[in-house]
Amino acid sequence: MRLKVRFLGLEAGGKSVVVLNRSDAEDLGVSSLGRVRLRSEGRELTAIVNTTTKLIEEGVIGVYEEVRNTLKLSEGEYIDVEISPFPTSVYFIRNKLSGRKLTYDEIYEIVKDMVKGNLSEIEIASFVTALHMLGLDLDEATSLSMAMVKTGNTLNLKGKLVVDKHSIGGVPGDKTTLLVVPIIAASGLTIPKSSSRAITSAAGTADRAEVLMPVNLNIDEMREVVEKTNGCIVWGGSLYLAPADDIFVRVENPLSIDPLLLPSIMSKKKAVGADLLVIDIPCGRGTKVKTIGDGELLAKDFIELGRRLNIKVQCALTYGEQPVGYAIGPSLEAREALKVLMGKEEVLDLIDKATDIAGILIEMSGRDRGKEIAMEVLKSGKAFEKLREIIEAQGGDYNIRPEDLPVGDKRFTFHSDREGFLLWMDNHSLVELARLAGSPRDKAAGILLHKKIGDPVKKGEPLFTIYAERSTKLQRALEELERIYVVGVGKRMEMLIHEVRERPITKKAFVLER
Amino acid sequence: MRLKVRFLGLEAGGKSVVVLNRSDAEDLGVSSLGRVRLRSEGRELTAIVNTTTKLIEEGVIGVYEEVRNTLKLSEGEYIDVEISPFPTSVYFIRNKLSGRKLTYDEIYEIVKDMVKGNLSEIEIASFVTALHMLGLDLDEATSLSMAMVKTGNTLNLKGKLVVDKHSIGGVPGDKTTLLVVPIIAASGLTIPKSSSRAITSAAGTADRAEVLMPVNLNIDEMREVVEKTNGCIVWGGSLYLAPADDIFVRVENPLSIDPLLLPSIMSKKKAVGADLLVIDIPCGRGTKVKTIGDGELLAKDFIELGRRLNIKVQCALTYGEQPVGYAIGPSLEAREALKVLMGKEEVLDLIDKATDIAGILIEMSGRDRGKEIAMEVLKSGKAFEKLREIIEAQGGDYNIRPEDLPVGDKRFTFHSDREGFLLWMDNHSLVELARLAGSPRDKAAGILLHKKIGDPVKKGEPLFTIYAERSTKLQRALEELERIYVVGVGKRMEMLIHEVRERPITKKAFVLER
Repeated sequence: MRLKVRFLGLEAGGKSVVVLNRSDAEDLGVSSLGRVRLRSEGRELTAIVNTTTKLIEEGVIGVYEEVRNTLKLSEGEYIDVEISPFPTSVYFIRNKLSGRKLTYDEIYEIVKDMVKGNLSEIEIASFVTALHMLGLDLDEATSLSMAMVKTGNTLNLKGKLVVDKHSIGGVPGDKTTLLVVPIIAASGLTIPKSSSRAITSAAGTADRAEVLMPVNLNIDEMREVVEKTNGCIVWGGSLYLAPADDIFVRVENPLSIDPLLLPSIMSKKKAVGADLLVIDIPCGRGTKVKTIGDGELLAKDFIELGRRLNIKVQCALTYGEQPVGYAIGPSLEAREALKVLMGKEEVLDLIDKATDIAGILIEMSGRDRGKEIAMEVLKSGKAFEKLREIIEAQGGDYNIRPEDLPVGDKRFTFHSDREGFLLWMDNHSLVELARLAGSPRDKAAGILLHKKIGDPVKKGEPLFTIYAERSTKLQRALEELERIYVVGVGKRMEMLIHEVRERPITKKAFVLER
Repeated sequence: MRLKVRFLGLEAGGKSVVVLNRSDAEDLGVSSLGRVRLRSEGRELTAIVNTTTKLIEEGVIGVYEEVRNTLKLSEGEYIDVEISPFPTSVYFIRNKLSGRKLTYDEIYEIVKDMVKGNLSEIEIASFVTALHMLGLDLDEATSLSMAMVKTGNTLNLKGKLVVDKHSIGGVPGDKTTLLVVPIIAASGLTIPKSSSRAITSAAGTADRAEVLMPVNLNIDEMREVVEKTNGCIVWGGSLYLAPADDIFVRVENPLSIDPLLLPSIMSKKKAVGADLLVIDIPCGRGTKVKTIGDGELLAKDFIELGRRLNIKVQCALTYGEQPVGYAIGPSLEAREALKVLMGKEEVLDLIDKATDIAGILIEMSGRDRGKEIAMEVLKSGKAFEKLREIIEAQGGDYNIRPEDLPVGDKRFTFHSDREGFLLWMDNHSLVELARLAGSPRDKAAGILLHKKIGDPVKKGEPLFTIYAERSTKLQRALEELERIYVVGVGKRMEMLIHEVRERPITKKAFVLER
């Protein structure tokens, strides 16, 4: 059936939706929420059908923005519309539901159909749930990684030794990447870093970097920056590297399950052509991986999956029971990183972590004394100079200064009501406060710590300051602050953690960052 | 936030969708595919958000038909819109994903949120997949049944012994219910029968009955008919009995899994207040339950679940390797049932099955010789008279005659090319042909068999006739007929069933009828 395109100006969160007159839908043999195949000038897309009896007349197809953009449609043009054939990959999903192990070909078919829009959310959710419940063995993880690479863009940096780093996240204020990328690029290795935005955290690396420079590059722009400077820090969202992952994430997040963690991370590293990779696994209370033992098990899987994908992987288990550095929130964090790179501030844990990770990468590339080299590159100002080159190459201001980065002018400082030592900090509460204050959407919102674990504290001394752009949001954060304990100050640890009076509801809800 | 209602005239297949200007959505803190809570004059509904920058301006909320109808909105009125709180039941679903057994309270919370629209398709699909993979024990099946009853309408026929029957389906042409209901009602028992429409079959009982009388009754109209006549045959879709089931089915059908079969059926029986129940389980090749052993296992679960719900259940395993009677398709089947009730036709297997099932119910109610009583009620014309009363009470024509029921005038008769006996029939192929010819949407389309298994066949004798309303649809059926084997005629069974040359893809795809 040929139908005339009408733009609706509606968005459906990434899903492809069209609206048909009910009579046309019946002629096609498709009902509401059924799927049709659209064809226009060699492009193809499967879309979900909504029906109407009045908004759209017969002969017309109303299209959502997602469909308009993917098919590059013009208002009023005619496109081919037919009922979508039943995808074979649904049979493979059913086989998985029956507990069968899937082959590479079957997994590739599922991933391909997913990226093409041929699978519904119901089918994808069911597949992801089955993977979660049955577990994913390393054969399937390898197949999934390869299939996700094959269905997206790849970077193809010819003739270079490509290195990369990734943190599974969970620690607030972790701006390590803003230091590692320039250190590594300045030390002669190539690091094409793509990062994510915050989902449940106060800032993702892409959010932090965006304060310094544009990060929404496409894959060709990214390649150009890397060829010029040996590095980049860009947002992964517009690169179309392993795009299947974005679809999996849409289903995993509401369920707080994450069976595809390994293939998700490793496929993106494979797509940029990484030869050497360090995975940062923050461990401890308030992080995603609670114990060192769990961290080691995860490391083992990363290393083995890397071996199968021909990526040499090392993992770094790092201390994660408090934020890295003092700043939380995009602009505050970018400012802290910039000051450290310029030598204006000495943030010991941040410098330690960045040079550890950079050092491992340098040693993996065949040189000795990696951490020393990393420290030298940082202290000499070469890393800062490299970051300025990258900022300029990505379209930012080469002469950017920490003072230029905005921080919220609505502020509240929390003071200690007793003397002692700072005994603990609650990562989740800090993130919640920062988000209530506006992070990451309000870039200038966040939290600045004045003390860290182990520091002596006098009565009345400031512990942390909350920054916001709008006073209503500062107010929201302050209301929450009344209810929760964020930091603990005392002379010694108290023994009772908390009382359990009735059967608790398990509310653990996080998704590892990718 | 208060927003002004604008009707969009769009339908989303039963889902509640609203469209917000992106700026309002951001102020609410909700993104595309997020959920908002709507309130209008005491009514509440959770809806999925789509965003736009142009179709809907700030201060306005575009509503789909589903939202308009549920909240009974008027164009231009103002309603309260706020971000939907995160439903606790999602935590219970997550617990199920971790393999935990759920309590009644937890299951009730899930079902309640589902019916209120608080759960997304992703969450429901994940829950159903987990139930499928872990299996549902009888405690959970009981909890689910009770929760599904509690979240919907109930019939409440005071002081009557209520009986019911249900077939799990799978056999084409099974118009048994059209006979059982009037036989039972005429024998003095009360049978408030609600039925479904065809999903993948050629006709559901509601489709067959609709040829004879209106079936889209609401619960009050249903009660009135039953109080007047002791019986009814209505469509379950507008009764709101165990409405959670309709939502589960939307998720189960695309996946071809059916973990909720037992609670789904039993909750509806509980909701009409059934005291005694017969479950018909057709067995054999070409049905849903392939072996008698499987049928007995299923029967055991039905009986035990019934015991827990205080419904006395018996099961009838019945022969299902060929259609019941000769007619397939709504109108042809209604015609056959009517003729049998009028004594104008002697369809032995149909009469046998109907009196068996009615007989079991009569004996369960405490009388002896149930099958004889049922046969007497049928042969005496009392059952026919009762059906006419029911037809009239439901708003149909008391004087309806078989000749009044339309049958398609586009026909093709398939003749035998050899002599022998009719050795087998393929249920699935017959259904496929009938559906291609237009069943169940075209009520007059279908198939009439001229021979059944065991009948002697002469060369050139007619085996079956396909009926259609439109010649294009007849043509589609004939094209399929070229490709498939529908019946087998021969002197003796041939030994080779079929060759398997490569690894077959399992395409089994059915859902038991509810």
